Amino acid sequence: MAGKNTQVLMKQHPKGWVTEGDFEIVERDIPKPGPDQVLVRNIYLSLDPYMRGRMDAVRSYAAHLNPGDMMGGGTVGQIVESNVKSLPVGAYVNGMLGWQEYGLARAGELRVLDPKIAPISTAVGVLGMPGCTAHYGLMTIGQPKAGETVVVSAASGAVGSVVGQVAKIQGCRVVGIAGGAEKCDYVVKELGFDACIDYKAPDMQEKFKAATPDRVDVYFENVGGEIMEMVFGRLNGFSRVAVCGLIAQYNGQPYPFTGMRHVLVNRAKVQGFIISEHMEYWPGAIMEMAGWIKSGKLKYKEDIAEGLKNAPAAFIGLLKGKNFGKQLVRIAPETV
Amino acid sequence: MAGKNTQVLMKQHPKGWVTEGDFEIVERDIPKPGPDQVLVRNIYLSLDPYMRGRMDAVRSYAAHLNPGDMMGGGTVGQIVESNVKSLPVGAYVNGMLGWQEYGLARAGELRVLDPKIAPISTAVGVLGMPGCTAHYGLMTIGQPKAGETVVVSAASGAVGSVVGQVAKIQGCRVVGIAGGAEKCDYVVKELGFDACIDYKAPDMQEKFKAATPDRVDVYFENVGGEIMEMVFGRLNGFSRVAVCGLIAQYNGQPYPFTGMRHVLVNRAKVQGFIISEHMEYWPGAIMEMAGWIKSGKLKYKEDIAEGLKNAPAAFIGLLKGKNFGKQLVRIAPETV
Repeated sequence: MAGKNTQVLMKQHPKGWVTEGDFEIVERDIPKPGPDQVLVRNIYLSLDPYMRGRMDAVRSYAAHLNPGDMMGGGTVGQIVESNVKSLPVGAYVNGMLGWQEYGLARAGELRVLDPKIAPISTAVGVLGMPGCTAHYGLMTIGQPKAGETVVVSAASGAVGSVVGQVAKIQGCRVVGIAGGAEKCDYVVKELGFDACIDYKAPDMQEKFKAATPDRVDVYFENVGGEIMEMVFGRLNGFSRVAVCGLIAQYNGQPYPFTGMRHVLVNRAKVQGFIISEHMEYWPGAIMEMAGWIKSGKLKYKEDIAEGLKNAPAAFIGLLKGKNFGKQLVRIAPETV
Repeated sequence: MAGKNTQVLMKQHPKGWVTEGDFEIVERDIPKPGPDQVLVRNIYLSLDPYMRGRMDAVRSYAAHLNPGDMMGGGTVGQIVESNVKSLPVGAYVNGMLGWQEYGLARAGELRVLDPKIAPISTAVGVLGMPGCTAHYGLMTIGQPKAGETVVVSAASGAVGSVVGQVAKIQGCRVVGIAGGAEKCDYVVKELGFDACIDYKAPDMQEKFKAATPDRVDVYFENVGGEIMEMVFGRLNGFSRVAVCGLIAQYNGQPYPFTGMRHVLVNRAKVQGFIISEHMEYWPGAIMEMAGWIKSGKLKYKEDIAEGLKNAPAAFIGLLKGKNFGKQLVRIAPETV
């Protein structure tokens, strides 16, 4: 296939908050698939907080990016050239093809999507990595019991919205934390949370205390910082904290957390996890969540930026909580 | 029994570090045992870091002390008057009779000791609460596997010394952290740890890194503060942290911990526990450890302050790491 392939590279490691100057947009030739490869035209790019961690030159669970590397990320696309029998041209696929218009992949690197089950964009949202992150972290680390209080930060986001709704299905009292009245309204009125605390409001602490009269049994940690501090101060005995993200630290400054005392006093369990290490968990969780979507128990919302060139700005907005729903970038129309 | 009963009360809640002025020594009449009670002459009082937490007027797993309350604590003593058939005069018993010379107890509140198995003082040390804390926290939360690296702070203390020796028995590489060359020498040469880092030395960070070439799989957290910070920075993937104490916070100032990122990045599990909630665990652990003492695999050291009136000073020393071995107070001679 002739033509150019726009890519977004990391130009330099960010200093503090990510800026647009940390990225570089380049045009390369569209690559040719090798004998066991397919060429995918990317349609949706998923933007996720974990990407911020990859941009720092520090040890983590995955290799970090070096200046000049293409930004990685989950994608949904359509096969346009194929040398693999099981992956015909026209098939919609989910992979990790990164911030680019076209990408090559082998069979084991792609998941074929059935557009009849759900919109293909959900493969990087509620029926993909964020949804499985929510389901796994809540159910296996949080282990919520009916009647318990579950708290989730970034409650209107791709992960938080699923955490809260799945916890409601388990019979829990669910309290969300989100930025702004509009997001809080959505979380309570649309998603059915019992309460949602606006972290931008000056009386956050008092409101949170009032919303958790029986304290907190399960906390799904997405944001870190002073919200984490506040929730740890309300933990119950034998509470469980699933550590999924610490967005407040994504400006490169570790937050000075003073709540370790509550882990001891409450005999709490605090556990980090990375959903890509639990791939065996995905099919069951996706099947269950697809059923809940069909029956109306699980809702989702997408925030779509138009065009790959707007990906850096959308990503910066995500880190600052400006998105409302799962942040996607539309790289190309679904059908051409 | 006629005579006076010296008691140590908490005079006021400490402000910051505990001072001797926070205590008051009083003389009361020796109480008379009721129809289902015994009178115990206390011989040893155990001093333990958890007592500091009880002195603050904050929510915790146990009720806090109010000004004028007697200091609580584990004791070993001898029955001097008895209205309970199963508890004859002369029997040595372990209970929670607090900072006083004589105390009353009912049958269910005492454990009868066999002085032939081990010195009676071990009932508040290696074969009591500290030993069971070490065994439980290491084995059930730490879950060490042979070849893994186990790190324990306050390594020469009542809990830390047992953690390290039990981890050696499991086939682990064991690195202790202790204050001063003398304690470090003891931990390595007497207790058989693979290495011990002196936290008073200026090159602690480099020495610790060199002593943990394969990073840290299990951390038994006793002290908090910058040592906790340092060890979290060396955690391995899927590491486990048993949170037993945070002595550095016992001056009332919570330490601003910046290591939560490592919990996420390493998919670590951090769990607090309180050994008194796992009484079913004690008999098996004590039996096992008594066997190890007999076979020479498990050693212990005691640091004994003389006289109940010296308990406040000894307790303050314990919080500052001045003790060397399990801190006891000898209230009275073993035999009269």
